[in-house]
Amino acid sequence: MIRYHAAHLLPISRPPIRDGTVVVHGGQIVYAGERAGAPPGADRDLGDAILLPGLVNAHTHLELTAMRGFLEDLSFGAWIDTLQRAKRAVLTPERMLDAARLGVAEGIMAGITTFADTCDSGVAMQALREAGVRGIMYQEVFGPAPAQCEIAVAELRAKVATHRALESQLVRVGISPHAPYTVSDDLFAAASEFADAEGLPMAIHIAESEEEQRLVVEGAGAFADGLRRRGIAVEPRARSPIALLAALGVLAHRPMLIHCVRADERDIAVIADSGSPVAHCPVSNAKLGHGIAPLARMLGAGIRVGLGSDSVASSNRMDMLEEARVAALAQRAHLRSPEVLPAREALELATLGGARALGLDARVGSLEPGKDADLVAFPAGELRTTPIHDPAAAAVFGIGGHAASFVMVGGEVLVDDGRLFRADPGLAGRVRATAAALAGWRAAESGRGARGRPDTRR
Amino acid sequence: MIRYHAAHLLPISRPPIRDGTVVVHGGQIVYAGERAGAPPGADRDLGDAILLPGLVNAHTHLELTAMRGFLEDLSFGAWIDTLQRAKRAVLTPERMLDAARLGVAEGIMAGITTFADTCDSGVAMQALREAGVRGIMYQEVFGPAPAQCEIAVAELRAKVATHRALESQLVRVGISPHAPYTVSDDLFAAASEFADAEGLPMAIHIAESEEEQRLVVEGAGAFADGLRRRGIAVEPRARSPIALLAALGVLAHRPMLIHCVRADERDIAVIADSGSPVAHCPVSNAKLGHGIAPLARMLGAGIRVGLGSDSVASSNRMDMLEEARVAALAQRAHLRSPEVLPAREALELATLGGARALGLDARVGSLEPGKDADLVAFPAGELRTTPIHDPAAAAVFGIGGHAASFVMVGGEVLVDDGRLFRADPGLAGRVRATAAALAGWRAAESGRGARGRPDTRR
Repeated sequence: MIRYHAAHLLPISRPPIRDGTVVVHGGQIVYAGERAGAPPGADRDLGDAILLPGLVNAHTHLELTAMRGFLEDLSFGAWIDTLQRAKRAVLTPERMLDAARLGVAEGIMAGITTFADTCDSGVAMQALREAGVRGIMYQEVFGPAPAQCEIAVAELRAKVATHRALESQLVRVGISPHAPYTVSDDLFAAASEFADAEGLPMAIHIAESEEEQRLVVEGAGAFADGLRRRGIAVEPRARSPIALLAALGVLAHRPMLIHCVRADERDIAVIADSGSPVAHCPVSNAKLGHGIAPLARMLGAGIRVGLGSDSVASSNRMDMLEEARVAALAQRAHLRSPEVLPAREALELATLGGARALGLDARVGSLEPGKDADLVAFPAGELRTTPIHDPAAAAVFGIGGHAASFVMVGGEVLVDDGRLFRADPGLAGRVRATAAALAGWRAAESGRGARGRPDTRR
Repeated sequence: MIRYHAAHLLPISRPPIRDGTVVVHGGQIVYAGERAGAPPGADRDLGDAILLPGLVNAHTHLELTAMRGFLEDLSFGAWIDTLQRAKRAVLTPERMLDAARLGVAEGIMAGITTFADTCDSGVAMQALREAGVRGIMYQEVFGPAPAQCEIAVAELRAKVATHRALESQLVRVGISPHAPYTVSDDLFAAASEFADAEGLPMAIHIAESEEEQRLVVEGAGAFADGLRRRGIAVEPRARSPIALLAALGVLAHRPMLIHCVRADERDIAVIADSGSPVAHCPVSNAKLGHGIAPLARMLGAGIRVGLGSDSVASSNRMDMLEEARVAALAQRAHLRSPEVLPAREALELATLGGARALGLDARVGSLEPGKDADLVAFPAGELRTTPIHDPAAAAVFGIGGHAASFVMVGGEVLVDDGRLFRADPGLAGRVRATAAALAGWRAAESGRGARGRPDTRR
């Protein structure tokens, strides 16, 4: 029994507690409450800190960490085109594994204990396992041509079998049919069936961009042009991307719906009826110019919502407190109300909300007896957190981006006194070398005269 | 001659420089460029850091720092009412001075070297002087009843005379007729004349809230009701808050226009024609539910724009890199374009833009020979800044909120190796005591049954 004391305790499932204590035994929480009422045990005082459940990142792409800052200020078509071509040309599996390792380390230092990663190469399984964090790796599958469907599913099956050998108490496998502009209707249906048969969770990028909307609704726009150039027939598919997933029966499998920026009232009702959760990525959605997702309305409809950083190739930073802050700021600015998404609700999205969206809320997301001991502490004695009238507001609006001082996953301490235990001193240098290779590739590309058209090949 | 070397140099007036050097002599910059071309001198290597001009906070309220997190999730009327009543009841000048000191220290650690502070108590002069930073303190003046005009100006004149005795090379005095809901038309005109006669810069809160808009345009709403209860006649005053200032001749004095959230195309043309600068406060505007100011259109009209944190009672955090990030994210989300406000332009707003808006661009805002040596370095070797493909993107989207490792104002080093030299070890405790007094006041208030109506009394 170890008793972790902190000046401010945010259990999430209950109001904040001044001078609170979490007692951990056998990797589980046996007590969370006032210090005075805690059962006996060895004492560890985290001091003037805010102690809360480990943060949940409901959507990221760890393998792309070396592309942080590589794709600034591009239109979405050029962004995804450059990303895909640079990935094929430069990002070997070894380089992506190191990128994923750096992304996980960054996330841990930002207090993230659960990562929902959407991965093409499959390297994230190893990165998550090595680091000792919790997570789901959704193996991506692509195939916009109906003829590709069978082979795509066969390859997916093989990859999943490989990854399953790496599953653990903390880390499991899922699948991700990528998005409507890279996945045919047949493949959406086949992947969903496969997920069902294998009991795999599923995640889909959906209703993110105008280009995607135009492809699905009109069979037109940059993505449609790109597909037609590859000889793939394009027709209008549905009245909206969400309606497409509903019509294909995909929503019956309750996939994690990533983005949902362009979800209207009918779409929101459809999502709510299906019971599918949503990964809301406010920084990525804003930075790439997609807009502001109807977060408040989705929450109002009872949809389970978690927050995602998306890849740092779009958001630049993996930081769930910042995602919570930007979520609240964007909703309040957009709806012109200071009463939308109070700090405590924004913080719930980054913890229990994410856990619910991933189906992990029986084990993590709040500080309650019987849950696994995923804990994070942030220093509360900094200038920017002085004074603290409201620890939830301090966490969401004050700390953001601040390094965690203490991180525990399932009872195992990953960070103490601000120090990451499983740090690899050569890692940053290797990721910088990958970045140099990316920069070299781009220089060579512009020498050759870069092609400007979007590429949805995969 | 001291040569400050850093891995990344962002002069702002020129593109980024890899392995750059700034040479400082006699408090001024004598060289900024490639390390190889620097003149001889003693060497100081700042290492793997991003070195840029000191950041400019174009609008804040330092005296309110103890109210950080005290006014969460309130409507604007309740927010300003609680703020004013708590200030009168609890915030003595000594408490406000300590609050201002803490705000300045927080700002310095976030890389701010120039503070434009709007101050009621007048304590900010001392806080700015003690800390060794650059700034303008705008002495606030209030008076919604025309009958108050003469005495308000007389008091203002006396306060300004006192503050002028504290002016220095770095810190000067201005005035701020607060806002249309606290200042009569007569007082706006008289204060402008006083500013002109005395050669004082001026700042005004304008076009911030719906309540203010309704007061000015319709003579209705919560602010109008509050004024009428005090026996002050309220009539529609103009077609918009900006039009009001234009009609009163105030814009001819080119005041700093704080907020301008509700500025339409005509307002923007009027501001641009007047040559008045704008202080854009994206976090405060979002958090209080006022909306997203037309930043891109104001910049397109050639208006000089700086970024402001506003008080931490609204924004929670004084951090110009975060204001730059939220400015870019909000504009891109609102205008649905990833090409609006690239990182280098957002960073310019936080440096040279702010300096231009304050009329200080001949001295600070960029790293150029002949300018005063206001320099800031942020660590670039953190996980969240690995790799760096684009140092401007790293500064705006990656670092935000991170502690500066080095800060210099006019050649004087204020922070080195992340340590603030003029730190006061008892300060945080004293500000926490003020916060406790505020919390006690609120508890007593709710015991008495708090009055809910907005108070514009002053």
